[in-house]
Amino acid sequence: MDIKSELDLRVKAVDKALERRLPYTDNERARIYEAMRYSLFAGGKRLRPILMWESCRMCGGGWNDVEPFACALEMIHTYSLIHDDLPAMDNDDLRRGLPTNHIKFGEAAAILAGDALLNKAFEITLSEKYEDPSRALRAAAVMAEASGTEGMIGGQVLDLESENRRVSSDELKRIHSLKTGALIRAACVIGGIMAGADEEAVKALGLYAENLGIAFQIRDDILDVTGSEEELGKPIGSDEESGKNTYVSLYGLEGSERLVREYSDKAVKALSVFGERAGFLLSLTEYLINRRR
Amino acid sequence: MDIKSELDLRVKAVDKALERRLPYTDNERARIYEAMRYSLFAGGKRLRPILMWESCRMCGGGWNDVEPFACALEMIHTYSLIHDDLPAMDNDDLRRGLPTNHIKFGEAAAILAGDALLNKAFEITLSEKYEDPSRALRAAAVMAEASGTEGMIGGQVLDLESENRRVSSDELKRIHSLKTGALIRAACVIGGIMAGADEEAVKALGLYAENLGIAFQIRDDILDVTGSEEELGKPIGSDEESGKNTYVSLYGLEGSERLVREYSDKAVKALSVFGERAGFLLSLTEYLINRRR
Repeated sequence: MDIKSELDLRVKAVDKALERRLPYTDNERARIYEAMRYSLFAGGKRLRPILMWESCRMCGGGWNDVEPFACALEMIHTYSLIHDDLPAMDNDDLRRGLPTNHIKFGEAAAILAGDALLNKAFEITLSEKYEDPSRALRAAAVMAEASGTEGMIGGQVLDLESENRRVSSDELKRIHSLKTGALIRAACVIGGIMAGADEEAVKALGLYAENLGIAFQIRDDILDVTGSEEELGKPIGSDEESGKNTYVSLYGLEGSERLVREYSDKAVKALSVFGERAGFLLSLTEYLINRRR
Repeated sequence: MDIKSELDLRVKAVDKALERRLPYTDNERARIYEAMRYSLFAGGKRLRPILMWESCRMCGGGWNDVEPFACALEMIHTYSLIHDDLPAMDNDDLRRGLPTNHIKFGEAAAILAGDALLNKAFEITLSEKYEDPSRALRAAAVMAEASGTEGMIGGQVLDLESENRRVSSDELKRIHSLKTGALIRAACVIGGIMAGADEEAVKALGLYAENLGIAFQIRDDILDVTGSEEELGKPIGSDEESGKNTYVSLYGLEGSERLVREYSDKAVKALSVFGERAGFLLSLTEYLINRRR
């Protein structure tokens, strides 16, 4: 099966789980559930759940071992996008071709929907029954740290503070390793933890994810310049317009392409300990860093 | 010792723990820590940590059994105030006599500081080593549910939607039982759980907290009308001005005083199963419902 069809199948499985975790709810608070679902089901790539699932599978586990954490991480990713788009933050009206949450539901509802998705991530992981509660606690701690001030939120802070100021290449790497890298890393590490993998394997997954995360982000920056608005679902060149620092502004297009290759090579190398079992992750890596949107 | 001195001692212990959990941090992200600390150390009553501590003590546990959860719940309470005060929400400039977080640090930082405090609550509870991980997981799940869409956030949603519309007494009770009651209830229930109390005791603690929470909220509403600005640290009559539904607007001052007494009687009754061990909680209840600010 080619990677695209395999990915479609996995996205469907993730969507089904998310649907079960955050179903349509018709109570007095219907509107907050509607706002949460609007962004959660706005056509995300489900990259983090799929990475977690595959990391777990590769270490001898399966979807059921990571399902709550996979859904939770996607919720955290979604909340961060909702809050990032707010007028006080990036002030974006459009995401994935749709009005952003606050444009659709108003600012107050968007703030609460973001809060609620972050909170829900912990509700679903913590209220689950686990065979090994210590293992689940460890995985939940990894998730919480990755999304906090020493992870994703920390990256958002650095990103905000760097706007309209030229950053060094080290700073840029640092911003992205926190802002997008931390959750991608958590996805793979949690996959290993929940499969009961040994520390060497968990470490290799972390190293893979760190490098994949950077390659992925550089591709994102390249697409913001070379992609078409239709493919991306948002205006082209919006990074440059908002005074964002990107890999393209720092290294140019050619230099950025070279960096994508460099980091994806490192990512691939980290997977060598898994031998043939890494087949799907290798294809996925190729697919992600060469994507058009 | 009188209740006021005893409370002062406990507030100091809670503050010390919070200081340790969220220390002054001088890294590249210093500003987010500063914003988080600004609101966390803005002179809160530490009601939730103290209720949790005492519920735990009453059931045979101690401060060390609940310390991470006590700090976490105070962080969740604080984040909810920061987001509540935002321009898109209640648009308040002043809280406890100080500029609100977004006035002091700007809206973007206030949104992130709120997110970060919610996240930190889970970081500290989940990264702790516990003798009994299942017990900790259960307590963390109670916390997550209480702060989510079927708890505190749900109450905020109902509250927002009820502005400038007259609500029924049932609706008002529902709003407050979610918005403020859920965390107060979680405080007491987690105290019981972490002490290893039996289900009857945990249930009694929940019932006590539910009724205390309502009595506490009604006193809040009364103070918004009868208190002095100096005592409250915010403008008097601000609820009425912003079109908020309050117990006073629904029942009048006299009716509200009667309700405070009614609910606190129910709270006290729920504690009867604890016999003499409930001494401190009984004094605390009296103190809270008769408070001047």
